Amino acid sequence: MAYEAIRDNVELLKKEDKNGDAIVNAISLIEDFPYFKSVGYGGLPNEKCIVELDSAFMNGNTLQIGAIAGVRNIKNPVKVARRLSLEKFNCMLVGTGAEEFAISNKFEMANMLSDRAEQHYKNKIKLLNDNPELSPYDGHDTVGMISLDNSGNMFAATSTSGLFMKKTGRVGDSPISGSGFYCDAEVGGATATGLGEDIMKGCLSYEVVRKMKEGTNVADAAKEVVFEFDQKLKKCFGKCGPISIVALDKDGNYGIGTNCEFSFAAGNQNEEVNIYVATPNLDTKEINIEVASEE
Amino acid sequence: MAYEAIRDNVELLKKEDKNGDAIVNAISLIEDFPYFKSVGYGGLPNEKCIVELDSAFMNGNTLQIGAIAGVRNIKNPVKVARRLSLEKFNCMLVGTGAEEFAISNKFEMANMLSDRAEQHYKNKIKLLNDNPELSPYDGHDTVGMISLDNSGNMFAATSTSGLFMKKTGRVGDSPISGSGFYCDAEVGGATATGLGEDIMKGCLSYEVVRKMKEGTNVADAAKEVVFEFDQKLKKCFGKCGPISIVALDKDGNYGIGTNCEFSFAAGNQNEEVNIYVATPNLDTKEINIEVASEE
Repeated sequence: MAYEAIRDNVELLKKEDKNGDAIVNAISLIEDFPYFKSVGYGGLPNEKCIVELDSAFMNGNTLQIGAIAGVRNIKNPVKVARRLSLEKFNCMLVGTGAEEFAISNKFEMANMLSDRAEQHYKNKIKLLNDNPELSPYDGHDTVGMISLDNSGNMFAATSTSGLFMKKTGRVGDSPISGSGFYCDAEVGGATATGLGEDIMKGCLSYEVVRKMKEGTNVADAAKEVVFEFDQKLKKCFGKCGPISIVALDKDGNYGIGTNCEFSFAAGNQNEEVNIYVATPNLDTKEINIEVASEE
Repeated sequence: MAYEAIRDNVELLKKEDKNGDAIVNAISLIEDFPYFKSVGYGGLPNEKCIVELDSAFMNGNTLQIGAIAGVRNIKNPVKVARRLSLEKFNCMLVGTGAEEFAISNKFEMANMLSDRAEQHYKNKIKLLNDNPELSPYDGHDTVGMISLDNSGNMFAATSTSGLFMKKTGRVGDSPISGSGFYCDAEVGGATATGLGEDIMKGCLSYEVVRKMKEGTNVADAAKEVVFEFDQKLKKCFGKCGPISIVALDKDGNYGIGTNCEFSFAAGNQNEEVNIYVATPNLDTKEINIEVASEE
């Protein structure tokens, strides 16, 4: 999902990117692309067939955060989140209040329900009617990115339509500071995807950054946080949903933590942007990362 | 604000409190009391003279979280938050979705705007019209509590009407996991109050619990987290709003972190519930805590 968007914007990071243009441009492309079922236009709707979106933006240099949640009809949620990060007060807005802010600040509004997403919804309703033992909830995903330019400016951002068939107003981890994202340019950044309800139980993006701050390298920090929390939650709650984290340190090294197969994209000025597949081994606590095959 | 509510419910903690009854009862009392200007009925309204409320509940034994944000007309937000913590999916709901959940689950609804709060709003509008150089934002507060029973069950919960004159849909730290609250019964819990926009920049409640987990005592953990973050934010963002944190460890010791004068209540089965005033010294990094005078 993120491959083309990163590939087309990584160049921006060669110059100074003080405002997070690279990450906002990249995520906006994904929001606009109709065939990604979990972000922006084309994102799968809630239980009432309405697309509700969440997004956040964090400036790692200043720790400024902007976030919106449970919003409708905003074409590029990440642009509104970045705008809100510039405010001293009222940086996180939900529901109609966020929509009013977007409208009065002349952000583009649009109906975010695509024909394809509507068809998915109708198929799901039929499937659930025919198989009442099934859970309505599966297939959630988020775009989360961290950027670092040649001057050390870092940003993190997320955007998602959240859990398919979610209740109206449901908010996952994506717009929640420390859970869906965190970024401190003196250390690094992290963003999460998976079952937001469980990610919030551990503030996992913040925890990865904190571990890096104490000296753990980014790969181990991301890996250890997810594996340890997976075990902790299984112990005290009895189960743990899918959780994947991407992290980037202030020197440009990345790390992945995941308890399920997970694909991601990464690149920099020296290595071309690639798609990778991360496969965890919950017994050995190792993660195998390979460039994805054409297939 | 919390004194009578704690005094009247601390007895519940002598017996096993597996469901967080003590904390939910105590916070509900505060929500119902019309003269507290920052919580529940009587809470100060947003820029449109509408009371919008946020609340969260966390079970420290299981890490389950329930939260609602930007909700109207819900008489006891903390009760809805506790109910949502029992769900596997859709644990955080905002806006009309949260209200629909409360209605369909038969929670009591009420108009939360008191005559007194409306008068405060009118006075503020007049003051701002007469003094356009003033900021509309001051006077925010939150009730946050952590409970521990004799069996080791721990809970944290928050409830607030948020920033007076806030934009519609504005959400502060109170319903945000890790920022407004966090609780892990194997370690302890923390809740925050102050400028939510800044508390979210540091995930401060989670950070206090994490520091305790690594062996710092609760008093030092709370104190160090607030003083260090106050300095960090002044360095990278240029300023830091008021931040106060109450923390409780799994053995029943409490700690306070604050960068402004702050009053709180605490008690247990051996010591009567008291109101205390914490006064920080930003130079020496010490906090003086005294029982509040009658005055």
